[in-house]
Amino acid sequence: MSAFSRFTPLISALPSTVPFVGPEALERQRGLIVQARIGANENGFGPAPSVLETMREQAGEIWKYNDPENFALKGALAAHLGVKPANIAIGEGIDSLLGLIVRMVVEPGAPVVTSLGGYPTFNFHVAGFGGRLVTVPYVDDREDLDGLLAAVKRENAPLVYFANPDNPMGSWCDADRIVAFARALPESCLLILDEAYSETGPAGSLPDISALIDLPNVLRTRTFSKAYGLAGARVGYAIGLPETVLAFDKIRNHFGMNRLATAAALAALKDQAYLAEVVGKIHAAREQIGTIARNNGLLPLASATNFVAVDCGRDGAYARAIVDGLIQHRVFIRMPGVAPLNRCIRISVGPERDLNLLAEALPKVLKAIG
Amino acid sequence: MSAFSRFTPLISALPSTVPFVGPEALERQRGLIVQARIGANENGFGPAPSVLETMREQAGEIWKYNDPENFALKGALAAHLGVKPANIAIGEGIDSLLGLIVRMVVEPGAPVVTSLGGYPTFNFHVAGFGGRLVTVPYVDDREDLDGLLAAVKRENAPLVYFANPDNPMGSWCDADRIVAFARALPESCLLILDEAYSETGPAGSLPDISALIDLPNVLRTRTFSKAYGLAGARVGYAIGLPETVLAFDKIRNHFGMNRLATAAALAALKDQAYLAEVVGKIHAAREQIGTIARNNGLLPLASATNFVAVDCGRDGAYARAIVDGLIQHRVFIRMPGVAPLNRCIRISVGPERDLNLLAEALPKVLKAIG
Repeated sequence: MSAFSRFTPLISALPSTVPFVGPEALERQRGLIVQARIGANENGFGPAPSVLETMREQAGEIWKYNDPENFALKGALAAHLGVKPANIAIGEGIDSLLGLIVRMVVEPGAPVVTSLGGYPTFNFHVAGFGGRLVTVPYVDDREDLDGLLAAVKRENAPLVYFANPDNPMGSWCDADRIVAFARALPESCLLILDEAYSETGPAGSLPDISALIDLPNVLRTRTFSKAYGLAGARVGYAIGLPETVLAFDKIRNHFGMNRLATAAALAALKDQAYLAEVVGKIHAAREQIGTIARNNGLLPLASATNFVAVDCGRDGAYARAIVDGLIQHRVFIRMPGVAPLNRCIRISVGPERDLNLLAEALPKVLKAIG
Repeated sequence: MSAFSRFTPLISALPSTVPFVGPEALERQRGLIVQARIGANENGFGPAPSVLETMREQAGEIWKYNDPENFALKGALAAHLGVKPANIAIGEGIDSLLGLIVRMVVEPGAPVVTSLGGYPTFNFHVAGFGGRLVTVPYVDDREDLDGLLAAVKRENAPLVYFANPDNPMGSWCDADRIVAFARALPESCLLILDEAYSETGPAGSLPDISALIDLPNVLRTRTFSKAYGLAGARVGYAIGLPETVLAFDKIRNHFGMNRLATAAALAALKDQAYLAEVVGKIHAAREQIGTIARNNGLLPLASATNFVAVDCGRDGAYARAIVDGLIQHRVFIRMPGVAPLNRCIRISVGPERDLNLLAEALPKVLKAIG
């Protein structure tokens, strides 16, 4: 049998590759159950008890569609951030918002600038709308703002992606440099400033909201998936000028949000005490991961995120062997996909128990692969 | 301030209209709280207790992303339907799947055939990808299969949408006629057979899965939002030939599903006894709505869905006055958007309490508007 014969040329030409393989797929492929799920930059400390209580209490409301205007969540986020609700768009995770932004800006063949080895799901969306990726190598394991700016200008690109703090390296930029970068961009280039890890960076790494809110060509994306521990809920948001944010309403899936996820996000935002507590745990877990790495002769890179990139000192094949070895010990981690970043493995934070499993398994794996 | 200056011409030209205004927005506009939420074709009887129990039990898993392959849900649906998992694509409600299908097939300017007054969210997606809507009027309050087929052929359309049972009229077609229609379509035209209300139609109204599963140009869409009572969860699925279904993987948001929603859908599918019970309640509520309508001199149309279209015997302005009058009594209903369908109001099923509020309010409203 063959497929429908008249998909668009763009769709017909797309590969069926996926941005990430999930741990569940690995379990099925390898016939094992993951014991330490520390590979997808989830937050194994989980959401606040107050959030779980809200979800259990409001489960019975699930027969209702969510408010398509996301009025309550936009209001709460606006109050939290010191902006207006009109500055905010809500979506089913940052991934969904990235897809919408790419669709808003990218026509087939349009150049889109990002870092070589940056977030694969962004690249997936760019390919999905026929954009042409223009990649700029990392410098010293950081995204290269000067290089990104030069590429935007050279290509007259309508879109550039920059993550701060960065995934997959965990590195970060000073807020001042990011603000200067955003203001140096041509107005004809939209900046996606992906701040999925905004809650876990050091002081001075996050531009004030007010520092960029006047720019029509900046959209900052944030999420409840990381520090707030709600990856499975799918709640992300974008912050920008109202006139720019309005474009989401033209194409978004207005009834796409899960009602209980929205309630969970609202509850999570209210419980800032828990957030502070969990950010402390994330910091401690980063230290633990660093110690485990060093104990095994590997080099942890400084991290502003909920994971640590660990330099294994050799090539991508070696790092891959470590990742593959660990999964045999039921420890799920990931690694960057592109050289030279792929000399590293990437380990997400998690509770003591998970990191202990890593500490047990890692020396065995390193010994086995030699 | 003005928006970003370089959105695509398509995006720049799109209006900011939304497919539906939610009841929450009406509450805010009018400063009232809806007491009978019977306008959005939700299922006020709610999901099974077993589903709510599953959600409460598994709430703590929400820190994990959902399995991007949707392995378990595809497997369960495949077993339920007597197909293979490869025949199924999962998405964040049918709305999301409709957007993906339109994107797969529609290039700017492409003709897309649907019924005049059919599902607005489909039209929203067609506009969003620059398609040109070609509409075929209803005949006797049913979508006109002959007319749709003729329009497809005349326009050489790559896409046609047909809902069975139908929204907003609640009418249905015999399965045989639908199968004949699908088989008469040119292979170069993809049929979206939207079966959101598949569980509530009469015998003989739903083609067997096997009757269409060999056709590369048919995708049937179904949902957990209606009979299963999980509108707020956002779980829909498409059924088709594996080669066609594979196209979803090229562009879908692989990590877009809510983990708890997936668990809820799995639990709902298992509890077929509850489904049978709730379908019985839906049938009874349709009867009740019919009785209320007739008691007020209005004509209920036969319904295969979880709502009843009620012919108010006059024009759209009159029906609008009834809808607007009822909301003042805290009863939320909707109405079709296009003549001659908009002589009707559309009332969703709900528990006794809600329908009693309708029964109380309707005569007052009719009297007031005269």
